[in-house]
Amino acid sequence: MPVNLQAPRPENLAPVAGVTLGIAEAGVRKANRKDLVVVSLAAGSTVAGVFTQNRYCAAPVQVCREHLAASSAIRAIVVNTGNANAGTGADGLARARRTCATLAAMMDLQPGQVLPFSTGVIMETLPVERIEAGMPAALADLAPTHWGRAAEGIMTTDTLPKAASRQVQIGGKTVTITGISKGAGMIRPNMATMLGFVATDAVIAPELVQPLVKAAADASFNRITIDGDTSTNDSFLLIATHQAGHAPITALDSADGAALQEAVLAVSRELAQAIVRDGEGATKFISVQIDGGRTEDECKLAAYAIAHSPLVKTAFFASDPNLGRILAAVGYAGIGDLDQNLIEMHLDDVHVVTQGGRHPAYREEDGQRVMKQAEITVRVNLGRGAASATVWTCDLSHDYVSINADYRS
Amino acid sequence: MPVNLQAPRPENLAPVAGVTLGIAEAGVRKANRKDLVVVSLAAGSTVAGVFTQNRYCAAPVQVCREHLAASSAIRAIVVNTGNANAGTGADGLARARRTCATLAAMMDLQPGQVLPFSTGVIMETLPVERIEAGMPAALADLAPTHWGRAAEGIMTTDTLPKAASRQVQIGGKTVTITGISKGAGMIRPNMATMLGFVATDAVIAPELVQPLVKAAADASFNRITIDGDTSTNDSFLLIATHQAGHAPITALDSADGAALQEAVLAVSRELAQAIVRDGEGATKFISVQIDGGRTEDECKLAAYAIAHSPLVKTAFFASDPNLGRILAAVGYAGIGDLDQNLIEMHLDDVHVVTQGGRHPAYREEDGQRVMKQAEITVRVNLGRGAASATVWTCDLSHDYVSINADYRS
Repeated sequence: MPVNLQAPRPENLAPVAGVTLGIAEAGVRKANRKDLVVVSLAAGSTVAGVFTQNRYCAAPVQVCREHLAASSAIRAIVVNTGNANAGTGADGLARARRTCATLAAMMDLQPGQVLPFSTGVIMETLPVERIEAGMPAALADLAPTHWGRAAEGIMTTDTLPKAASRQVQIGGKTVTITGISKGAGMIRPNMATMLGFVATDAVIAPELVQPLVKAAADASFNRITIDGDTSTNDSFLLIATHQAGHAPITALDSADGAALQEAVLAVSRELAQAIVRDGEGATKFISVQIDGGRTEDECKLAAYAIAHSPLVKTAFFASDPNLGRILAAVGYAGIGDLDQNLIEMHLDDVHVVTQGGRHPAYREEDGQRVMKQAEITVRVNLGRGAASATVWTCDLSHDYVSINADYRS
Repeated sequence: MPVNLQAPRPENLAPVAGVTLGIAEAGVRKANRKDLVVVSLAAGSTVAGVFTQNRYCAAPVQVCREHLAASSAIRAIVVNTGNANAGTGADGLARARRTCATLAAMMDLQPGQVLPFSTGVIMETLPVERIEAGMPAALADLAPTHWGRAAEGIMTTDTLPKAASRQVQIGGKTVTITGISKGAGMIRPNMATMLGFVATDAVIAPELVQPLVKAAADASFNRITIDGDTSTNDSFLLIATHQAGHAPITALDSADGAALQEAVLAVSRELAQAIVRDGEGATKFISVQIDGGRTEDECKLAAYAIAHSPLVKTAFFASDPNLGRILAAVGYAGIGDLDQNLIEMHLDDVHVVTQGGRHPAYREEDGQRVMKQAEITVRVNLGRGAASATVWTCDLSHDYVSINADYRS
């Protein structure tokens, strides 16, 4: 059961001028399932992305990187589910390229203007013929209002579609930011991938789109973890169509730039957190906030040590305020000169650890009360500086094991 | 159910000249349970140890380090279960010191000649009075043949006691190496700690004992992982009583030194692997062997990425040859310039991946056959060099979640 997550209402997903989306059933792996999404972008759009750091990266990720490096005129995105086209070698690359070439021909574009995305089973041959056969239906379906359908079309074992939308006023114009995401483990049972696509009609200097997507990813998709497993296919794309009609944003630290950045981050964070809320077997949504570090990096080390610890995650599942597990995770996070006697810890508003030991006023029932909630914030202060970092994660439940152990059987 | 692990037979655990062991029921946490072990070492023994790298280390670990640094005449070891004396601040340190002082007075030693070890609940006050009250019974029980009882006396939620013994001929004399260990997660539900104690009567230059214990730990206890969680109390001690009567070993790379080192390593490895075989919820014993790395360190990165991946571990539980998960773990292990097209992988004798993709001759049923075994070796060749590393782990099962989620409830 997802944690405080609901399917998006289509009427809440504002269209982005210059973006249309079409969905089809291509039968990539299963019949009668929306498994192909084509996104058409108006001429003049700017696209930037961040991709998996996994060295074992999928063929479509390699092709995306090539096309983004070579062309500033991306005009279409094609996403299939059911097959990740990962671990497929030279043949997989050829099939990803053929997908782009076929769609380009149908849309009167160059192959390099198309970005391909695949998510699904690893190490199986991409059935490119089925994807090609589904393209005419997807193209016929193109419409600016199809964000909700597209969110469904990129799902694999997600239990709910994920979409978010914001509008902000910039230069007297309404600017829209709308996006979709998918994923429920960092890598799925056998189905890979976290995908995120966010589009805005903001008018922005093209060279700012890459730093904007990088900053948004670093504070959203790069701050979530379900099981610590990084997919071969993870991708996050930001599209700017420049059609909102306001004066161009030429710096992210201008007032307009900051307003846009904040809205893009809000959409990205909502999409990223939706993935955690729909995490495999998740019953709790956990925010891990580390303060008092010397650097943001060491705060992240401590946050991820807590967020990845199977013992901490099972304690959350059991609603057990098992403080020693959290402290032990901080201790092995890799902060070489950490002084355990300076550690403070809160579970929501409950002060549980002071000077590295149990707070004298702490009562087990107060910790228990917080641990029973569906959403919990763990705050640890390292007592060494002024840096902070927050990551979001979920608990580790019987269902996680069932989903991942039983999927292929 | 432990994987191919049986309780040691006392008659197979050879006494070590100069070492006697006594066990008592001190009622530290529960009544009617062997929870106190005292080990008495003959005068002239040399003791060296390696301890947890966790910055949040327990009070007894801090006291052990102090005493080993200050004295070369360690004469006694005291181990309690039921309470880890971790996360207990200055009061915990005082209680660990008092444990040493009380035992020293009873044995006519100095406090600094006693090493304390605690394992059990974190962040609760050590009931030092109960431990003291149990000491006379433990001292009255001292005998050279009590290795098996001592293995039981240091258990917490281990399902079986763990002990191992070897004898080798050195300089015409029989040299004995016998040891015990405990632990079933790197840190227990709420019970902390991996402990290992190995003793030998070999005659060896005292300054060689520390490098010997370090080398043995690096190839045994430092190569196992159950859940990646490093305890606050992990400790491994090597005791040399020098009573075997052969000419002293003055170099580890001499013939006699190598024979001793090999036997110490064999005992340490058996004790370490026993912990994995008794891992929480374990149904499979997995050896992860990485070859073809440029350095041993990068091989370890890849091995631990595989061994810690919840997705890989659940696949082993399900007997599912889900190769993509293993390849993805190698990909995110942190080897920056890894070429995925050079990866080769075997499951036991089955060649499953070649040149980074599925081997043409690989059939799913062959992978399935291996995955159903209780013991499995995953071999990955990185294709970049001549270095290797092996780690041992277990699968991630429903029982792991149950044990860790339900322990305190």
